[in-house]
Amino acid sequence: MLERQGRVEAALDCLLPGVEHAPARLHSAMRYAVLGGGKRVRPLLAYAAGELVAAKPGHLDLVASSLELIHAYSLVHDDLPCMDNDRMRRGKPTVHVEYDEATALLVGDSLHSLAFQALTDNALVADATRQLAMAATLARAAGSSGMAGGQAIDLQSVGKRLSLPELEFMHVHKTGALIRASVQLGAMCADSLGAIDLELLDRFGKLAGLGFQLVDDVLDAESSTATLGKTVGKDAMDNKPTYVTAVGVERSRKLASELCEEALAVLEQFPRGGERLGDLTRFIFHREF
Amino acid sequence: MLERQGRVEAALDCLLPGVEHAPARLHSAMRYAVLGGGKRVRPLLAYAAGELVAAKPGHLDLVASSLELIHAYSLVHDDLPCMDNDRMRRGKPTVHVEYDEATALLVGDSLHSLAFQALTDNALVADATRQLAMAATLARAAGSSGMAGGQAIDLQSVGKRLSLPELEFMHVHKTGALIRASVQLGAMCADSLGAIDLELLDRFGKLAGLGFQLVDDVLDAESSTATLGKTVGKDAMDNKPTYVTAVGVERSRKLASELCEEALAVLEQFPRGGERLGDLTRFIFHREF
Repeated sequence: MLERQGRVEAALDCLLPGVEHAPARLHSAMRYAVLGGGKRVRPLLAYAAGELVAAKPGHLDLVASSLELIHAYSLVHDDLPCMDNDRMRRGKPTVHVEYDEATALLVGDSLHSLAFQALTDNALVADATRQLAMAATLARAAGSSGMAGGQAIDLQSVGKRLSLPELEFMHVHKTGALIRASVQLGAMCADSLGAIDLELLDRFGKLAGLGFQLVDDVLDAESSTATLGKTVGKDAMDNKPTYVTAVGVERSRKLASELCEEALAVLEQFPRGGERLGDLTRFIFHREF
Repeated sequence: MLERQGRVEAALDCLLPGVEHAPARLHSAMRYAVLGGGKRVRPLLAYAAGELVAAKPGHLDLVASSLELIHAYSLVHDDLPCMDNDRMRRGKPTVHVEYDEATALLVGDSLHSLAFQALTDNALVADATRQLAMAATLARAAGSSGMAGGQAIDLQSVGKRLSLPELEFMHVHKTGALIRASVQLGAMCADSLGAIDLELLDRFGKLAGLGFQLVDDVLDAESSTATLGKTVGKDAMDNKPTYVTAVGVERSRKLASELCEEALAVLEQFPRGGERLGDLTRFIFHREF
């Protein structure tokens, strides 16, 4: 896992423009937002799904980077005062605190564009048509029918009590879409797609995405700011509906554990190579538990 | 020109999710931001450049739409309080005034993703590798080495007196990059690229981009809010350096006129079909003059 985290860190470092290029302050802030922090869960999922289909690690680096860039952009925008107004992220001041709001806005926008540049600027798979489909998959996962749409639902839900299905709908978009795309994009790097069951892998991606958010809700309610590297207990403070406010900590933990088992059961249907994805699943679901 | 504006309007209407899809408020705001306004200069440039190389109008619709979506996202973010804090745009309240700041942020982000979805989700040219290059061109034009980078330089320049070369550097990024990409992307829709001189067309794109910003600066200093559909005199009020503050209205007009002649001279080097691009050039440079 450490080796993969190192790989994506190096690839991101390479992709992000250096501060010697104008505008220096923007490029410095982009690097601040992306490098040296985060568990890189989305890249790790892409690497592990790619490994399952024998994709070349070299091809996966840019795919993994594009996913992390989209994730990083969403964090920078999500932290802005008009959104969650968070001051800490990954153990350090958020971009708008360290720089300023306008720069944070442009950092998010620039990382967003850079993600698509990473995914289209080089041949990553033999079939260019499939690479186009990968870019379209990422765009759909990031946009109003995916992650950004989930954020909008999240905003509308402040102060409301959501049912479990409503909560699931929100999280399937907000967090689930990009987690799912991470698995899809990794798998789409296969030399031949015929060899694997994309649909099965996608079922795994959906379960992992939902579980990831569940665990996040529990952590937000229980952990300390030091452990999580961001302001905790914020959800309750912001009057945001979460799994924990909907069904309590204990039932949330139980749900997470069931989802984890279900995801692992899906992986067992693959004839070979699901070990790393399995380890990663256990890592996601049991993080600080 | 009206026919082309109608084409891109219809294509955008088709691309933008309907309000019957959740999240309804976000989708409503996205449509508000994009539809029913604007001169569609970037789409018109893509259509005209495409015509020059005999590209099929049907293929150009999505290319034109992706350019307008990037432009629209940048306007929505640029109007936010932490940026230019504009309250009027295209003759109506800006998105954050009509909706709210958080929604405006997500509208910009969603349009940004949708632009890349439009450009990658369907086969637009026979050669998928070239289509990937088109997406990469758009990403580079939008990102920190293009439009977003230009915005950052713009922010840093408030209250400063820039030299003409510094001003040109800022505008080549802020406005020029996307105008230039509009011409490039239209041209890249050609059945065969060998038939045209992409480099020559790119020289035209650079001139048009710079000229467009020059004319915009003069208009901001001189027009009425009613004519321009957005708050005017804002640049001076915001203490922003422009061509007009740098060299005055008269010399700015003269520079624009020289750039226009130069751009038209480039077009004359094409054996056939540069008429529409020529008309468009005159339209851009003489808009309300």
